[in-house]
Amino acid sequence: MTLRTSDLPLTFAPEVSSALARGGAVVALESTIITHGMPWPQNVETATRVEDEVRRHGATPATIAVLDGRIHIGLTAAELAALGQARDVMKLSRADLAACLALGRTGATTVAATMICAHLAGIAVFATGGIGGVHRGAEESFDISADLAELSQTPVTVVAAGAKAILDLPKTLEVLETYGVPVIAYGQDALPAFWSRDAGLTAPLRMDTADQIARAHRMRATLGLPGGQLVTNPIPAAHEIARATLAPIIETALAEASAAGIASKAVTPFLLQRIFELTEGRSLTANIELVLNNARLGSAIAVALSQTMS
Amino acid sequence: MTLRTSDLPLTFAPEVSSALARGGAVVALESTIITHGMPWPQNVETATRVEDEVRRHGATPATIAVLDGRIHIGLTAAELAALGQARDVMKLSRADLAACLALGRTGATTVAATMICAHLAGIAVFATGGIGGVHRGAEESFDISADLAELSQTPVTVVAAGAKAILDLPKTLEVLETYGVPVIAYGQDALPAFWSRDAGLTAPLRMDTADQIARAHRMRATLGLPGGQLVTNPIPAAHEIARATLAPIIETALAEASAAGIASKAVTPFLLQRIFELTEGRSLTANIELVLNNARLGSAIAVALSQTMS
Amino acid sequence: MTLRTSDLPLTFAPEVSSALARGGAVVALESTIITHGMPWPQNVETATRVEDEVRRHGATPATIAVLDGRIHIGLTAAELAALGQARDVMKLSRADLAACLALGRTGATTVAATMICAHLAGIAVFATGGIGGVHRGAEESFDISADLAELSQTPVTVVAAGAKAILDLPKTLEVLETYGVPVIAYGQDALPAFWSRDAGLTAPLRMDTADQIARAHRMRATLGLPGGQLVTNPIPAAHEIARATLAPIIETALAEASAAGIASKAVTPFLLQRIFELTEGRSLTANIELVLNNARLGSAIAVALSQTMS
Ligand SMILES: [Mn+2]
Ligand SMILES: [Mn+2]
Ligand SMILES: [Mn+2]
Repeated sequence: MTLRTSDLPLTFAPEVSSALARGGAVVALESTIITHGMPWPQNVETATRVEDEVRRHGATPATIAVLDGRIHIGLTAAELAALGQARDVMKLSRADLAACLALGRTGATTVAATMICAHLAGIAVFATGGIGGVHRGAEESFDISADLAELSQTPVTVVAAGAKAILDLPKTLEVLETYGVPVIAYGQDALPAFWSRDAGLTAPLRMDTADQIARAHRMRATLGLPGGQLVTNPIPAAHEIARATLAPIIETALAEASAAGIASKAVTPFLLQRIFELTEGRSLTANIELVLNNARLGSAIAVALSQTMS
Repeated sequence: MTLRTSDLPLTFAPEVSSALARGGAVVALESTIITHGMPWPQNVETATRVEDEVRRHGATPATIAVLDGRIHIGLTAAELAALGQARDVMKLSRADLAACLALGRTGATTVAATMICAHLAGIAVFATGGIGGVHRGAEESFDISADLAELSQTPVTVVAAGAKAILDLPKTLEVLETYGVPVIAYGQDALPAFWSRDAGLTAPLRMDTADQIARAHRMRATLGLPGGQLVTNPIPAAHEIARATLAPIIETALAEASAAGIASKAVTPFLLQRIFELTEGRSLTANIELVLNNARLGSAIAVALSQTMS
Repeated sequence: MTLRTSDLPLTFAPEVSSALARGGAVVALESTIITHGMPWPQNVETATRVEDEVRRHGATPATIAVLDGRIHIGLTAAELAALGQARDVMKLSRADLAACLALGRTGATTVAATMICAHLAGIAVFATGGIGGVHRGAEESFDISADLAELSQTPVTVVAAGAKAILDLPKTLEVLETYGVPVIAYGQDALPAFWSRDAGLTAPLRMDTADQIARAHRMRATLGLPGGQLVTNPIPAAHEIARATLAPIIETALAEASAAGIASKAVTPFLLQRIFELTEGRSLTANIELVLNNARLGSAIAVALSQTMS
């Protein structure tokens, strides 16, 4: 497939286009954490901290969002501030990205949509908090995030602290295996679980350096395999909430959701809010720290990729 | 992928090839409704009415079927009459289309196979009654129509009155989301449910004009996204069977099927026959009216696409 | 997608490269049966017998494995002997093939990875014992082999004696239909079930000659459909273990696994070992005979393909 970039509704921030032009390291960042993950102004402060962390580690950040019908690859400070306070922002995945663009609307990109946009822009690495996956109860609800199928078809290496711990992690691993997605634990054998370093499951693959991850990324391209890689990066020990602490809190929040009749798309926001309350705010601090940690590893992978490419 | 049309086993009806050659609006139509959906001669009469409805709305109809090992894009009156009375006609989906062609046999095309053939022929819009989806009980049977995966990979906009109401509609929506398929309700927020205008579910996307749908179709191509769009078009109010009326009838038919030990591929024909009887034939009238309605909207989308392309 | 073979980490055995260069018939063979299926030296003896059976039927065998970071298409006798005694050999599927190559490691290829490598090497036919599929209990575990999705996307005709009989065969058929994979029974209507000739299920398609299968393979390529075909070839009657004999043995082994708390990836090896014991070794003899039988049919298909291609 040959894409003529000029036809694409892409607007590059100057910092990003010059980095791409010189073959420099670029790390994509998503925008639903800004519009749907945190309140203003904390959302914009956090996004700015993450961008700065990427810059401090030798790469250029490209926060991705759809503004008024164009995909922005990198946001200016003014655009970021506006997005952080915008209302009626669509939450975009593969299914609705084109519709949002065609209707001239504004939307924040989930993991799946960020991968699509990053790839269109020529960016191979994307750092985020956690990916979507198979929801608890999916054996009845069939609720499985489009992020998993995206990883099987779009060649972007996604650095996350794992799938979100409120998901069904064993089923998420099975679906990723069925779809042929490499799941790599960074620096340990155990699969991390977002707020916790160890999900109690062994990751299918382990790598210990950014260079190994970059080489595996390039090898998939050489083989013509269409998908990406999921790099699961354990939260720094100083900030983790141990699984033994968190598991009963998640169970409590799930039981409350069930008792209150909260269903379908309302469940995840309810759970995250209750976990925030039951951990006395530690879940949010941990969330910010793990995103910063993923920004660092993503930068290192992007640097390694830019070096092996040239 | 470059396809040399000359290598393809395609036979175009004169009306269709001249429409395609001048960049005119063309609407694909499927053929299982002819061979497996209605008895002769009502099947041929209905197919002819649908074709005429497309012509009346400014587009050229292309009924698609495999005859003696070749894909026909548009059927002559004689071919339609023969197909309408043929026996041993295969019911073709993605899995068996190539085998039917290689063996020189005759087959009617389901939604999935019609999409594939339409795309090979350069047709971007397809009007039908209802698509397949996730069957009730699929959490145990794993019975999920190939139509859903087809929508994720073949760039055809499919206009339907929804997934067939005997299916599990919430699970069908989940799978479409997982696969990244845009599901657009036309002119309302609610997802239509084939015989009824409202499934009791909100559609993921809403569009109010054929032009919006055409623009979203083109945007997916611009982005290089491989799949199509599902446009769910509510049956005209004058012909709908309200959900409150239909739901207990479907439950009754399901209970009868279960009591009679009817399983797997025999279930759908049994349910449709019982719903026909229990609605005193209204289900069939409604089915014809919704197909005509989809032919009209499909024509409008095809006209909008042919105008934006030139 | 244009692949420059020179960039690929492929090492061809001389016998294979000369066969491919002259447009001759080549049959790919997998290597997990060598490293994970049988003990040494029986594994190497069997692999050699299978290769010889391919040669005796007019084709060239290409046993595929990853050795020290390169994909070998065809193994020398020395390489085969070394692989047969190697330890710490990865078991490669789509998810980990690139990682194994990038890390310079050694791995045996499952059905999915063998398909990928065969296609990279320009080999269109692959003979094996049985493919992976939907595991019993997958409605809770979501354990579905990556082989099924591979068949939907990689254009290799796979000759097998069916999916392994310890799997959930009705669910496996449903997933293959959902994915649009042709499932062809060779010479009979019934779906074979690995050790038994009849799974008690009708196969979706039936073909009676290698030439029909070759023509269907070519037709899929002509249509631009990306996937392969699954040819299910019944075990020779003289070697089958009838389903009536085998079904209670599988039930016993499953009950024992459950009672012993054996779960997830440990289940399949446990079941195969218990079936070996409970059939007094007949299951292994049958397994070898069915692979030889598939090597013969695979050779005939490869010969038919090489003739139609030239
Ligand atoms: Mn969901
Ligand atoms: Mn089905
Ligand atoms: Mn598995």
